Amino acid sequence: MAEPTKQDVIVGVDLGGTKILAGVFTPQLRLLQTSKLSTKSVRGFESVVERVARCVRDAADEADLSPKQIKAVGIGAPGAVDPAKGEVIFAPNLQWKNAPLQKELEKHLGIPVFIENDCNACTLGVHEVEMKAKPRNLLGIFLGTGIGGGLILDGRLFSGFNHTAGEIGHMVLEVGGPKCGCGNLGCFEALASRTAIFRELARRAKEGEKTVLTDFLQGGETITDLKSGDLRKALRRGDKLTEKVVESAAEYTGIAIANLANILGPEVIVLGGGVLDALEDEMMSIIVETARDYAMPGALKDVEIVASKLGDEAGITGAAVLARQQLKG
Amino acid sequence: MAEPTKQDVIVGVDLGGTKILAGVFTPQLRLLQTSKLSTKSVRGFESVVERVARCVRDAADEADLSPKQIKAVGIGAPGAVDPAKGEVIFAPNLQWKNAPLQKELEKHLGIPVFIENDCNACTLGVHEVEMKAKPRNLLGIFLGTGIGGGLILDGRLFSGFNHTAGEIGHMVLEVGGPKCGCGNLGCFEALASRTAIFRELARRAKEGEKTVLTDFLQGGETITDLKSGDLRKALRRGDKLTEKVVESAAEYTGIAIANLANILGPEVIVLGGGVLDALEDEMMSIIVETARDYAMPGALKDVEIVASKLGDEAGITGAAVLARQQLKG
Repeated sequence: MAEPTKQDVIVGVDLGGTKILAGVFTPQLRLLQTSKLSTKSVRGFESVVERVARCVRDAADEADLSPKQIKAVGIGAPGAVDPAKGEVIFAPNLQWKNAPLQKELEKHLGIPVFIENDCNACTLGVHEVEMKAKPRNLLGIFLGTGIGGGLILDGRLFSGFNHTAGEIGHMVLEVGGPKCGCGNLGCFEALASRTAIFRELARRAKEGEKTVLTDFLQGGETITDLKSGDLRKALRRGDKLTEKVVESAAEYTGIAIANLANILGPEVIVLGGGVLDALEDEMMSIIVETARDYAMPGALKDVEIVASKLGDEAGITGAAVLARQQLKG
Repeated sequence: MAEPTKQDVIVGVDLGGTKILAGVFTPQLRLLQTSKLSTKSVRGFESVVERVARCVRDAADEADLSPKQIKAVGIGAPGAVDPAKGEVIFAPNLQWKNAPLQKELEKHLGIPVFIENDCNACTLGVHEVEMKAKPRNLLGIFLGTGIGGGLILDGRLFSGFNHTAGEIGHMVLEVGGPKCGCGNLGCFEALASRTAIFRELARRAKEGEKTVLTDFLQGGETITDLKSGDLRKALRRGDKLTEKVVESAAEYTGIAIANLANILGPEVIVLGGGVLDALEDEMMSIIVETARDYAMPGALKDVEIVASKLGDEAGITGAAVLARQQLKG
């Protein structure tokens, strides 16, 4: 698998609440190898930094490269990130506040490190790798355990005054709707994320609606323990309940896109994330149709709404793009 | 009132569905005089252009100036506007599509004309005239008969790919909520505009809830014929129904602001429009409190949420700022 090379490389890191994924890229953004570690955020900031450094070195080793061949590391981290200060300002699922990720990781690795919000990094990766005609304004929407977004405006990543722009998952779509992890009611994330989909399925199964999902459960598991792939399996077996719930999530996503198109006027809208990767065939047509139905006349004229093909690699790719940009910059 | 001057002036025009307001400004943006005409859009595009031209000349005459002293005219027009082409792409309440407003008005007046969306113009005016420390990212929100917005991002007016960005009034906040003029259900505009407030008041009065608003009605009028000032009068007389309905509109506005802060990360949020101008004292504290309650942690940190003091003059001021900017080029 590994392809020995004398070239310098860039490593892109996707730092999540549960796992760390590192990818070794050529300067032309060809992915050579990846490495994965669990985050173990409960062990605290210092430990996570050490694990990220280890994951970066492991990835280089997998690619038969010495750590010295790594020119720079880019990291997409969850939460509000200040790239200039190199700090994760606020990341609830890591329990970090003003964490000096860049500085501490540079101490460990001895090479330049650049950080960005994870969804911003994904959007950057999609823009650089998947968009032939580079759109000036791009909106990235990522449907996974939660929902996040990223904005490229006037050709550049845009994160606003407090580095929180693109937090589309906490746009309220249904005042008084289902409770969100953030404490509010009716957020987009509480209506269309994987968490929301499985919660709704579990609720309705408990009320007696039939679903094949119960056949997939192994000793002690409940419906909320299942994965996006199980939804696809259920849909392919004609499961009506899964169909209804996934359709509803797709409709909410379409309405969210209409809102965002009205507000931001993007040229291209790209969807990604684990839920969309697993259910692209089932969700995309409903999403696009609903978005066009709800958007203001003209707002989506000639606007592409597409699914990213980067899948799991969006985060590491975007982080590598970030590092490459910053090195050049 | 008029102050004779040898100076060149700029005229800013606020072109609305029902009235045309023109203001004569010094190059330092001091307002010298205004003039008003009804739009009479049913007479068609050519007629409206002629009326705008007449209103501009009337305003100059009111200020004891000759038309030759007007260096340029700026216009804020409703709907989607392409400033580069000089066209109103789509304006439902004027029934215009691809209307060459700039070119036709230049024919009438023989001086440079610049056009922009009305809420974009208002936002530009607020940014230029009311903001001492020019924020890089500003969001303008205008609550009137309808609801519109404008964005200044990275220091410049931002209107997106199809010139429709800032259409915040049609952000769905309550899926399945009250019907909006655009045909969708639960738009911000259907929940917090003057139209929405009076519709809700009329509905609840009809259901038997008591309100002093009925005392304000003159021969044949219904509650929906009343004006924003009547709401203020009712509130000052302790009218409980008006209080509840206005409070609800303020809460929806706060939720909308939280959504927009999460999505856009503005540095300053300015509110204006007829409803807010009339009810600032009653609405602002509820709006701000709700916004801070709903926004993501950090998104509104150090972000100002303020009411514009420009009132009715926001549109003409912004249009004059536009013309001045464009002249300077």
